[in-house]
Amino acid sequence: MAHIAYVNGAYVPHSSAVVHIEDRGFQFADAVYEVIAVQHGKLVDGDGHFDRLARSLNELSIPMPMSRGALKLVIRELLRQNRAQFAALYLQVSRGQAPRDFPFPSDIEPTLVMSVKRLKPFDFERTSQGVDVITIKDIRWKRCDIKTVSLLAGAMGKTEAVNKGAFEAWQVDADGMITEGTSSNAWIVTPDGELITRHTDSAILGGITRHTVLKLAADQGLKYVERAFSVDEAKAAAEAFTTSTTAFIRPVVKIDGDTVGTGTPGPFCLKLLTLYGQHMERQS
Amino acid sequence: MAHIAYVNGAYVPHSSAVVHIEDRGFQFADAVYEVIAVQHGKLVDGDGHFDRLARSLNELSIPMPMSRGALKLVIRELLRQNRAQFAALYLQVSRGQAPRDFPFPSDIEPTLVMSVKRLKPFDFERTSQGVDVITIKDIRWKRCDIKTVSLLAGAMGKTEAVNKGAFEAWQVDADGMITEGTSSNAWIVTPDGELITRHTDSAILGGITRHTVLKLAADQGLKYVERAFSVDEAKAAAEAFTTSTTAFIRPVVKIDGDTVGTGTPGPFCLKLLTLYGQHMERQS
Repeated sequence: MAHIAYVNGAYVPHSSAVVHIEDRGFQFADAVYEVIAVQHGKLVDGDGHFDRLARSLNELSIPMPMSRGALKLVIRELLRQNRAQFAALYLQVSRGQAPRDFPFPSDIEPTLVMSVKRLKPFDFERTSQGVDVITIKDIRWKRCDIKTVSLLAGAMGKTEAVNKGAFEAWQVDADGMITEGTSSNAWIVTPDGELITRHTDSAILGGITRHTVLKLAADQGLKYVERAFSVDEAKAAAEAFTTSTTAFIRPVVKIDGDTVGTGTPGPFCLKLLTLYGQHMERQS
Repeated sequence: MAHIAYVNGAYVPHSSAVVHIEDRGFQFADAVYEVIAVQHGKLVDGDGHFDRLARSLNELSIPMPMSRGALKLVIRELLRQNRAQFAALYLQVSRGQAPRDFPFPSDIEPTLVMSVKRLKPFDFERTSQGVDVITIKDIRWKRCDIKTVSLLAGAMGKTEAVNKGAFEAWQVDADGMITEGTSSNAWIVTPDGELITRHTDSAILGGITRHTVLKLAADQGLKYVERAFSVDEAKAAAEAFTTSTTAFIRPVVKIDGDTVGTGTPGPFCLKLLTLYGQHMERQS
């Protein structure tokens, strides 16, 4: 299998894809990223990801490394070289390389890195299996709306989840409200049949899959509310689920070991998963 | 000038010192670091830095990449190759390289990177010049006691300081209390002559220079208290100063444009700076 990465203008074997030790992505987490699902060789919600990338870079005063059109061409070529039909495209932009110093340096070129990881094609049966989540304290910084590589808190949380046999950790703020998963958004369906996910602000990342699911729900005339919800409310919900770019929509059947609803994937979640599968087939 | 870096066992020209794009230091800020001052070719408070490195790694379950004795030998060789008598040694350990995934992977080797930047020899006249600081909101994560490369909030804050003509930004928590600078600890001397710096907990990094200055003060019989202090208290203080590995001790004469004390470096600070200069001369 070809395994080719892209680093600052060059398509290189993945094994020799490197950045300098004084790249600010390595020394300061001064970098942002996107992960984009590829289905049948097409980017899923590509424009949503490019919009968010532009916003993240703008918040940090990092210039776009190239135009969106050029970026799409590079991505197409990278997918072609990797013969990737079903994959996750990883894209990272750091502020660039400069002698180590805290303030943002001026006049440096951003570093652009991309790599491709194969994924299995979307499979409704597999994805609709229920998973467990745990809850943990949200210890992250106060700008989680920017998709930076400051991911250590998330890595710690996900490690704790995996060690406890869970799929994901839902992070809980000082008020006892769930913010989001370490790499996913959190959702519940109330006993009254209302779909709820947390409103976006600087405490969470505005997920692209989150946005798409809200749109799919609206298209179907399904009721939803964007607001914070507590751990107790989540445990008492009729259904719960997570959304993310590469895990799509996963029903959550246990939270901290407590059964949610019937303890099986619920109809609301499965309906959204069906719609999401159709949405992915419609990409061009 | 020779400019040699160390990367995973090899001494390499600084320009070709690289890490893989899937190093977790680059993708997850899953790495810790130390900066150690070198005076007359000797490490200043080397054991303090090695102790803190071991603690940071332990908190993140990253193994030490080599024994302390071996590390000292590598550092000595790196300083020799760089002919570095007055320098800052930068040392970073990341969890290592692995296919991108949030949970900590097992069975990977940590990445060890070191580089050397020349500094001017300690100069009492230059270092004793007063500097300005600004105050900013502390937006960092809740484990600032671990010296990780999750430094983006600090880089943003220092950039703001520099843009406003200040030397440093002091970060302020939700209760209005100063935690620390973006790359330094914050100190005041009260009108009653009491030396104060914030107590250590997970909100600040336990600075090595901070520790040394407390010890020097104690050796002289000077009174000090480790406790939080507010922006208002700092502005009303008799003196203020910052401590860090490479800036040593710098008198702070203005906070947010407001004059501190007489607006000139104070006797308490200058006394400590004299003691610190002597301390650096005593390294072996």
